[in-house]
Amino acid sequence: MAHDSGAAVTPKFSIADPPAGGEPYLLTPGPLTTSAGVKRAMLKDWGSWDGDFRAMTADLRRRLLAIAGDKDGTYDCVPLQGSGTFVVEAMLGSFLPPDGKALVLVNGAYGQRTVQTLGYLDRSYWVLDKGDYLPPRGAEVAAALDADPTITHVVLVHCETSSGILNPLQEIAEVVAAKGRKLLIDSMSAFGALPLDPQTVPYAAMVSSANKCIEGVPGFGFVIADKTEIEAAKGRSHSLSLDIHAQWAAMEKTGQWRFTPPTHVVAAFLQALREHEAEGGVAGRGARYAANCDTLVAGMRALGFETLLKDGWLSPIIVTFFNPAHPKFDFNRFYELLKAKGFIIYPGKLTVVDSFRIGCIGRLDTAVMHQLVVAVGEALNEMGVDDASPPSSAINERAKLVA
Amino acid sequence: MAHDSGAAVTPKFSIADPPAGGEPYLLTPGPLTTSAGVKRAMLKDWGSWDGDFRAMTADLRRRLLAIAGDKDGTYDCVPLQGSGTFVVEAMLGSFLPPDGKALVLVNGAYGQRTVQTLGYLDRSYWVLDKGDYLPPRGAEVAAALDADPTITHVVLVHCETSSGILNPLQEIAEVVAAKGRKLLIDSMSAFGALPLDPQTVPYAAMVSSANKCIEGVPGFGFVIADKTEIEAAKGRSHSLSLDIHAQWAAMEKTGQWRFTPPTHVVAAFLQALREHEAEGGVAGRGARYAANCDTLVAGMRALGFETLLKDGWLSPIIVTFFNPAHPKFDFNRFYELLKAKGFIIYPGKLTVVDSFRIGCIGRLDTAVMHQLVVAVGEALNEMGVDDASPPSSAINERAKLVA
Repeated sequence: MAHDSGAAVTPKFSIADPPAGGEPYLLTPGPLTTSAGVKRAMLKDWGSWDGDFRAMTADLRRRLLAIAGDKDGTYDCVPLQGSGTFVVEAMLGSFLPPDGKALVLVNGAYGQRTVQTLGYLDRSYWVLDKGDYLPPRGAEVAAALDADPTITHVVLVHCETSSGILNPLQEIAEVVAAKGRKLLIDSMSAFGALPLDPQTVPYAAMVSSANKCIEGVPGFGFVIADKTEIEAAKGRSHSLSLDIHAQWAAMEKTGQWRFTPPTHVVAAFLQALREHEAEGGVAGRGARYAANCDTLVAGMRALGFETLLKDGWLSPIIVTFFNPAHPKFDFNRFYELLKAKGFIIYPGKLTVVDSFRIGCIGRLDTAVMHQLVVAVGEALNEMGVDDASPPSSAINERAKLVA
Repeated sequence: MAHDSGAAVTPKFSIADPPAGGEPYLLTPGPLTTSAGVKRAMLKDWGSWDGDFRAMTADLRRRLLAIAGDKDGTYDCVPLQGSGTFVVEAMLGSFLPPDGKALVLVNGAYGQRTVQTLGYLDRSYWVLDKGDYLPPRGAEVAAALDADPTITHVVLVHCETSSGILNPLQEIAEVVAAKGRKLLIDSMSAFGALPLDPQTVPYAAMVSSANKCIEGVPGFGFVIADKTEIEAAKGRSHSLSLDIHAQWAAMEKTGQWRFTPPTHVVAAFLQALREHEAEGGVAGRGARYAANCDTLVAGMRALGFETLLKDGWLSPIIVTFFNPAHPKFDFNRFYELLKAKGFIIYPGKLTVVDSFRIGCIGRLDTAVMHQLVVAVGEALNEMGVDDASPPSSAINERAKLVA
């Protein structure tokens, strides 16, 4: 499997600090396993008004803009308290004007959540719904934009963790730009490990959160947006708490977050940013995750499991496997057996076939993935499952995938 | 000074774990100095979907309801990601219907923020604004409610940390109940240290946050609300992220937070709840803070400082002192001198006179407050300030305070 996110970079990472005291590895899309150094950064209390903490906030914003590849000060970074969903809602409420109209590209739960959010916000939208795992393609986005000239924005999920699909971001960004519309990106589970360069993927705004590929702990998210868009968002938000312009304006003026920040989570995130840099930034991080994914997929296939997605659509973030058709396979027992062996996996989120997911992100390397594959084999034995192949209905589903 | 929040209870607290490595004490309204045990609880990663974490969420809700004194299951507890302001906004958007009308009692920044939030929410309201530090009284609330029968809700800040005033909650709650209206309480900086018993102070909903008197770290807040109110809030919120009914319904159904919770902050809060219980609950916690306040105020008065508020209105949460009139007094230098001595204080927030604030909450005891007073005396000497008394204009301001 070829991942081009950093194949030329040798991973600099080794697990110097595995989870303590038998704590399981989190093979999930986040919260994830973080380094001991990230957690230790939370052993101090910070005054949010104090100059030391304001300097930490400034450093955080500067580092995120550097990761985003902002070359000329076009963009700015606005962190916001809450989970990733809070910052997606903040982006939509701040950058999509009440008289705008969105085209939402949906192929999973996170796209659906964007649609739900636009309902709360009373914004107009079209949905291009590809079902559980098919990618939206540039040509169909172009057709949708041609069909309704009043569409102003396209909203895309970079990596849809419902299935683990890596959506064709660049192809879609090019269409959106060519048609003169604006792109809003939910890069929650991809930013920091997969390239998202505004010079090749022009966007109005993107969001991600602390507890994904930067490998911090959960508690806040952040927007990276064109400053022109931020300034235009003044007075537009439906929510005081989620008002990106107000958060930005206060931070620019005082160096503080408008309302109490999660100080310990911020301190942990700064340490995570330093470790991200030490690993070689996006290229280094992406290379490690790609190696994790390759090890995982090869090992699981050797056990007889099948992936939902064909190789070209697999992301190095999280992988969906079909449940075995074997009558003795029981997901809840499988989960508990793996947890007892030190691995927490994630249930599936598909509507059509039964599946489960295994994440490749967090403080994990290929040695951990090898151990996991061994544990999965043991768990199958303990359940009496001697064949991990999926039902033929699952294979038929996969056959629908485009090349 | 008499504080009736727990005078009969002997504080069980002693500082077993002062801040490490010369880290300053945070004498602020939060984030505050937490125990080493609370911070150490963050040294593990939790899967938010896993049963262990769901059990932690259930324990958290149960413990908060016990602190709230819910005797018969009338109330429920809904934690919500974000800062305290997020949960205030969530309360207003969820429990104040679009066709309702609020009377907001304002005497400082937090009351003003409620007014600002209602503007975002497009709700109707009246404001009873008492300025910087005068308390709203029952009689004037009664008059306002009589004057407009369409007022459905009264919104009150329990302890307004702008000045440190402890508002007359019970007096106002009785009027609101007698007039057949509903009470919404921002008890951000008071819950857990000051009594708030729904049997004597009937309320529809109240909010607080993790990093106040329970002594957790910042990252989420919580609502305690009458279940009837929660059920009636279905479909009412302006915001997906801040929708209390949706958060509650998902938590009831799955035991999970709807969106990624700040897992480490939750783990820290559970440890803080255990320490709160071990200290004797609200009575024990309140008694320690009252002793902190008494030591602080007596020591500062002995140095010549004057409090903004007369004794009857002082809270054991945070105290506002007038800046000395002496020409050599400079707040920024005072702040830095105290920080170098190990104490971070808080700037004032009054519009009329210059002041600063010192918090009494967090992992502090009277020994710390004695050390602080010594440090304040040293700082005055180093600045060449030999008289800490305020300008006569400040005293004139204070004279306006009701008895």
